Amino acid sequence: MFATQNDRLLKQINFIVEIDKLKQVLRQNVPIGYTRNENDAEHSWHLAVMAIFLAEYSAAENLDVSRVIKMVLIHDLIEIDAGDTFCYDAKGYEDKAEREIRAAERLFKLLPEDQAEEIWGLWREFEEMKTPEACFAACLDRLQPLLVNYHTGGHTWQRPGVNRDKVLGRNEVLEKNAPEHCFVFCTVLLCL
Amino acid sequence: MFATQNDRLLKQINFIVEIDKLKQVLRQNVPIGYTRNENDAEHSWHLAVMAIFLAEYSAAENLDVSRVIKMVLIHDLIEIDAGDTFCYDAKGYEDKAEREIRAAERLFKLLPEDQAEEIWGLWREFEEMKTPEACFAACLDRLQPLLVNYHTGGHTWQRPGVNRDKVLGRNEVLEKNAPEHCFVFCTVLLCL
Repeated sequence: MFATQNDRLLKQINFIVEIDKLKQVLRQNVPIGYTRNENDAEHSWHLAVMAIFLAEYSAAENLDVSRVIKMVLIHDLIEIDAGDTFCYDAKGYEDKAEREIRAAERLFKLLPEDQAEEIWGLWREFEEMKTPEACFAACLDRLQPLLVNYHTGGHTWQRPGVNRDKVLGRNEVLEKNAPEHCFVFCTVLLCL
Repeated sequence: MFATQNDRLLKQINFIVEIDKLKQVLRQNVPIGYTRNENDAEHSWHLAVMAIFLAEYSAAENLDVSRVIKMVLIHDLIEIDAGDTFCYDAKGYEDKAEREIRAAERLFKLLPEDQAEEIWGLWREFEEMKTPEACFAACLDRLQPLLVNYHTGGHTWQRPGVNRDKVLGRNEVLEKNAPEHCFVFCTVLLCL
């Protein structure tokens, strides 16, 4: 019994140590006031705090905010193996799903079986974007880079191949899932 | 009505932009495999994921995990103004509480009143360490640097004035609040 319990704990600790690598996965944008790239751990933290204070803007009633928070906390873990795919990089998107599923297979299976299932469920829900919680998590994942880009002189939007239509297209999810405020706010931002 | 709603949203967005600064608050330890210091945003993210997968080790039954997660996500925000106080720095601790309360006053009041109250409540609960959720959050706040230090050659423990007794003393909270596993694990770590 004790050995089995320790085995479970060691798997969990091994996973927690492994995901420290998320702090090394760099995104395209930079934190406000900095020239270094933001990393996925910082980004995920920011989304989780946003979930707490912006939940009221979800189009869905009775949103399970704690599931939104869990989803955004783990949504980018697969990038430890699969890397960050720039959202406006069509070529990178060709094998994105395949790379990410391989990553999820390796990473999530570090956990005890029941928790591996839990995290698979959370990640799949986020990716499929069918539940209100996943849709709102996607809104946060769009809004955070918008805010950071706005406050860093449109850092990422100046990359080759990125234009206003592509940015607006990527952020359409906000119109449907947080219509009253977030989309208005983002449109205002983009018009400035 | 619309103006008031926009005012509320603008306060929330202002807060979300302001807390981006947590990505610049450096801690004493380094992420595993890196020589740069870890920052508070990365640390807070790590604790929140740990809360999801280690909640079963809390000494308390019926732990409200979502409150633990919220607490660890916001527990270091005050360091945006107050800075990171090294946990083994007795002098730094002299005015720590005063500096942190001033920081909380400024930062939390950026939010609309109801949410300012919510975050004050969460932070105060974390600091007072009286509820099972706050005690477990404190355990995570002790365990994460232990794990990171262990995997970086005891980086922080090699600083002047830090010794085994001080590290064990700081981590006593684990013995009471996550007795079955975490303390055993940490003791094993420290004996290695």
